[in-house]
Amino acid sequence: MRVGTGVGLLISMLAALCPAAAHADEGMWLFSNPPTGIIKEKFGIGLSPQWLEHVQKSAGRVSTGGSASFVSADGLVMTNHHVGMPALADLSTPEIDLLETGFYAKTRELELKCPNLEMNVLWEVEDVTEQVKSAAPPGMPPADAHAERRETISVLESEYEKATGLDCQVVTLYGGERYHLYQYKRFTDLRLAMAPEKSIAFFGGDNDNFEYPRYALDVCFFRVYENGEPYHPQHYLSWSKTGAAEGDLVFVAGHPGHTQRHATAAHLAFMRDVEMPVRMRDFWRREVQLQTFSARDYEFARIADGHLTGIQNARKAYTAISAGLQDPLLMNRVAENEKRIRAAVEANPEYKTHWGGAWDDIAAARNHYREFFLRHRAGIHSTLFGIATHLVRLAEELPKPSAERLPEYTDANLDALYSGLYSQSPIYDDLEIDQIACDLSNMVETFSGDDPFVKRALGDLSPRARAESLVLGCTLMDVSVRKALAEGGAKAIAASDDPMIRFAADLDPDFRAWRKKCEDEVEAIERDAYARIASARFAIDGERVYPGATFTLRLAFGTVTGYSEGGSLVSPFTTFQGLYERAEARRGQKDYALPERWLKRKSRLDLHTPLNFVCTADIAGGNSGSPVINEDAEVVGLIFDVNAPCLAHYIAYADDDGRAVAVDVRAIVEALGRVYRAKPLVAELLAR
Amino acid sequence: MRVGTGVGLLISMLAALCPAAAHADEGMWLFSNPPTGIIKEKFGIGLSPQWLEHVQKSAGRVSTGGSASFVSADGLVMTNHHVGMPALADLSTPEIDLLETGFYAKTRELELKCPNLEMNVLWEVEDVTEQVKSAAPPGMPPADAHAERRETISVLESEYEKATGLDCQVVTLYGGERYHLYQYKRFTDLRLAMAPEKSIAFFGGDNDNFEYPRYALDVCFFRVYENGEPYHPQHYLSWSKTGAAEGDLVFVAGHPGHTQRHATAAHLAFMRDVEMPVRMRDFWRREVQLQTFSARDYEFARIADGHLTGIQNARKAYTAISAGLQDPLLMNRVAENEKRIRAAVEANPEYKTHWGGAWDDIAAARNHYREFFLRHRAGIHSTLFGIATHLVRLAEELPKPSAERLPEYTDANLDALYSGLYSQSPIYDDLEIDQIACDLSNMVETFSGDDPFVKRALGDLSPRARAESLVLGCTLMDVSVRKALAEGGAKAIAASDDPMIRFAADLDPDFRAWRKKCEDEVEAIERDAYARIASARFAIDGERVYPGATFTLRLAFGTVTGYSEGGSLVSPFTTFQGLYERAEARRGQKDYALPERWLKRKSRLDLHTPLNFVCTADIAGGNSGSPVINEDAEVVGLIFDVNAPCLAHYIAYADDDGRAVAVDVRAIVEALGRVYRAKPLVAELLAR
Repeated sequence: MRVGTGVGLLISMLAALCPAAAHADEGMWLFSNPPTGIIKEKFGIGLSPQWLEHVQKSAGRVSTGGSASFVSADGLVMTNHHVGMPALADLSTPEIDLLETGFYAKTRELELKCPNLEMNVLWEVEDVTEQVKSAAPPGMPPADAHAERRETISVLESEYEKATGLDCQVVTLYGGERYHLYQYKRFTDLRLAMAPEKSIAFFGGDNDNFEYPRYALDVCFFRVYENGEPYHPQHYLSWSKTGAAEGDLVFVAGHPGHTQRHATAAHLAFMRDVEMPVRMRDFWRREVQLQTFSARDYEFARIADGHLTGIQNARKAYTAISAGLQDPLLMNRVAENEKRIRAAVEANPEYKTHWGGAWDDIAAARNHYREFFLRHRAGIHSTLFGIATHLVRLAEELPKPSAERLPEYTDANLDALYSGLYSQSPIYDDLEIDQIACDLSNMVETFSGDDPFVKRALGDLSPRARAESLVLGCTLMDVSVRKALAEGGAKAIAASDDPMIRFAADLDPDFRAWRKKCEDEVEAIERDAYARIASARFAIDGERVYPGATFTLRLAFGTVTGYSEGGSLVSPFTTFQGLYERAEARRGQKDYALPERWLKRKSRLDLHTPLNFVCTADIAGGNSGSPVINEDAEVVGLIFDVNAPCLAHYIAYADDDGRAVAVDVRAIVEALGRVYRAKPLVAELLAR
Repeated sequence: MRVGTGVGLLISMLAALCPAAAHADEGMWLFSNPPTGIIKEKFGIGLSPQWLEHVQKSAGRVSTGGSASFVSADGLVMTNHHVGMPALADLSTPEIDLLETGFYAKTRELELKCPNLEMNVLWEVEDVTEQVKSAAPPGMPPADAHAERRETISVLESEYEKATGLDCQVVTLYGGERYHLYQYKRFTDLRLAMAPEKSIAFFGGDNDNFEYPRYALDVCFFRVYENGEPYHPQHYLSWSKTGAAEGDLVFVAGHPGHTQRHATAAHLAFMRDVEMPVRMRDFWRREVQLQTFSARDYEFARIADGHLTGIQNARKAYTAISAGLQDPLLMNRVAENEKRIRAAVEANPEYKTHWGGAWDDIAAARNHYREFFLRHRAGIHSTLFGIATHLVRLAEELPKPSAERLPEYTDANLDALYSGLYSQSPIYDDLEIDQIACDLSNMVETFSGDDPFVKRALGDLSPRARAESLVLGCTLMDVSVRKALAEGGAKAIAASDDPMIRFAADLDPDFRAWRKKCEDEVEAIERDAYARIASARFAIDGERVYPGATFTLRLAFGTVTGYSEGGSLVSPFTTFQGLYERAEARRGQKDYALPERWLKRKSRLDLHTPLNFVCTADIAGGNSGSPVINEDAEVVGLIFDVNAPCLAHYIAYADDDGRAVAVDVRAIVEALGRVYRAKPLVAELLAR
């Protein structure tokens, strides 16, 4: 129910059912189906099974939505500062803000345990496609088939967990053409070892984000503990003392979150013409309204800061994706490839029978979706409204058997739900009012002030007056009130005269109806159709096809190389020298002030040390924190961003100026040693 | 063709066919039909014909889109700094920026002649309703009738100009129920006498604009010359030494630009549901895109500054109007009043025959307009595209007789057109590219990337690539190229291979077609219907009805009084003390830094001097620069802004917290004397 903040973007953005004529360095490959042939052919290098297993088991997925890797024999984990940020915020107090001060534990005893941080390492993969597919007999309506498969998946997961003691999740690949059961080693005791100040980790702020050249030390280190002792991983990545050079082949092992590369031309046209315009509009509106809100008062600016940063970040990413969708060259390329596959399907009677209608099914589903897309998207982005809606839905869902509930209310998900619902995080009346008024205005503008649903939402008041009456009369700031309502069930909800509860209870049947309509009449049809398209592609293009991103472990490869922008060449590396120059050029501007110790200790640094670099590896949001490694599996960098052209790879990879952006390991060591005086940490990283 | 800047807003925004049950201080009254009865009744004060003539002839309309008044026997004219700003910018050089430094001419010889500034003073008014109305026989189709009336108006204006030597313009009042011929004395030699720094004139910037309390010295002085000598006006306003006090009756004589108070409920619903959502969306988009543009570079920020300020200003104003439209209370009030009038019309057979269908005609026209509103609104906001379009249209229009051309190309308007077309103002490639790319993206999002018009506009390129190719290949930066194309006519246009000319020539037939469709099928119908509604209102409510704003001289009245906001009372006056306190509280924030001499000379000022004040007078954009006077016609203030609730008065005046905001004359005198050491100017103002 809440607008995503920067953290939410970790997995929400950026890279994959690729066309057969794969582009140069395209692909987010499964470790179970790696691009060994391509690498051998192009670079003359073989990836051994041992190499692959070693990299796979050194890489991890972090619960805040990013990637990470083991980088020492004593369980040291490296990830981005922005991936660790929620943990840093949790560990901060009103007196000590770790985002401002940074942190370094001089001894292991001083490492800080993170209450809500987890890491998962992929241990084994099992193909369970047959079991899942056979759960739904052919001809079953798509929505029912989906329910049957979900049931089977749930059973498989439980069985494997019992058998292996690992965390088991079935991953839907190729839009439902394949199902793999992933078994994870789960680590729940992570302790903060070192984090620089946010001002150097996020140097340049939102302005430089998705741009290049960059100058950010976006790194932090945690240590994994088991049974109160540092964990000694079987596999961890060695540190490269020389780093990467221009032209080097590199690999990225991480967890790209989501891509739309499998989307049909009709689906992309829907995104371009219907979905993106609405999303962009909402970003623009909210960005301007939050800026106006922030301008009223310094305190208002503080409480809106996270929301504003999150929206600006998402707006920037979606702007780049929209630019891709609006580029006829890109859209024509997708259409041409689709035409080729469809022609091959039409030419084979058996193919045609099985898969021929899939593209038209998607086009029809999207056309149908156009009719109610705006209704389905409507909502109220407010913490209090989110809480009220959860309470109303809990009362309705809990009496049902777990399997029949909305997924977020199943027994397996209730812990997470309650932990959010009973969170003591502060709620700000003014911001709540501003958000609700904004969304109510949006409803008037979208559906008309005379629309019956809108009239009910407004209750004969103006959007702002309505928002004020809902928030100022709301009792849900008090966690004990939430608990009482959750425990009181349907009876307590019906008896409550809290205005926000009444508001949520009144609107929720509509929200639920639109959601169900979308699930049944769009998503179910498309899931089925996309699985058929994937089957067609396997049949026509063979096994050299990688699946769309699913926030599971993938291997990408590329070369360290610059690109041209506006006619001039952008060098692949930046240096500390460049950092200090940019700080000077942008003096006085928000997000460009260096931490005090970076100013004081400048003279100690080798200013020619490479700070950030770019490569062509195919990545996406969720890859934040991924190690960049060389052919010897040594870490040479740490992914933390992409440049703007790379964002459009969300819909189609291109041999263009899109680049992944990484922190150079040489900068990390230089800064740890000379700015943070973290010699033991440096020694641990460099040890073999 | 160009996005309005702050200056464009002077007349584009804010305050009238009012309901009979007029609210307390409602009304923008004609000097030819002043509210003498209301004033007498409410305040016990009579407005004599001499008083009215004196005030009328002391007031002026400035060519930059604001109001002004004569305030000395030697032709000194007072207006707002923001009204004079284009002239100040014209007078600035790369070496001396008058907006930054301010200006004061110690002697008259040092006053600076403004190349493009004019002032008009309303001298006589003649009712020509009969002549104009009789030009079109009853039953003629609305569009034809409109053309006939325009022809008659043009003849009347020429005849009267010849006869009087004055500048003559027929003003359409009450939506076409009345036509008045206004005769203006025109002054073209205005010289800058004094202007403070922009940082004190626009203290608080866009953040404080449309807010209160305010602390701005938004004033500047010009002197009118005739034949090289200071002009000695027959009428000028005396300066009040005591200013106004809380509760005082005050008057405002100025030129409100535009209001929609006559709009029917169906028309307002159209504004709420169709027009405003699109306008707001465009503001948000452009504001965010210009901010992103500005963040790239300090030079980019400088060239985008005017556009950004203009958009933020307009966005703020339209936000308040939208809030009014989205308020069911306001909309119900309008609907109730409309119901009353319609019932009275229905009850009288003769009324019903003449006027009964007017409301339904408007509803039908607006419904029809919904079908092509977005097409009609589409456009490219670029200086180069605007120039190219003018050149293309000139080639098409000039061969026609003047009366048959689009209005902006008639002989009477050609001088103004050429002066804009051949302007040497700088054009910035980067900003042009950004604007065109933005508008092309907007077209894709509005009409789909597969729309034939959009495909033509894009020419198989992405919006940005298309914009780059149009701008970087354009030759129209060179004024001599424009002149050659204008003089070469249709042949030169057809032969030109300038990409912007080809682009404009290709798209213009569509833009013209949508414009004509709107003029013929919406505006003509509505003009006719609104005139009938006005007749009905006169018949039912009598002559105590004021017309909607038309950027012509009006008289408003009100009292100096505070209001409540969020439960606490806002005092009507602010002081210099408050100014210094706000500057301190907002230290370091853009637009809150005081000029050096204000800091240095603080101790000389009486800090209790009133700086700004508010009153209930009914004003609108265009009133900027209007004198606020007391019952003795002495100046007590200078209108420069309204607060946010007042902005919604654009559609309906309400006895709410809406206020006009003025500079206090006591602050002007105190600042002139003690900060600017402009003793002669003070003496001139205070002389009787």
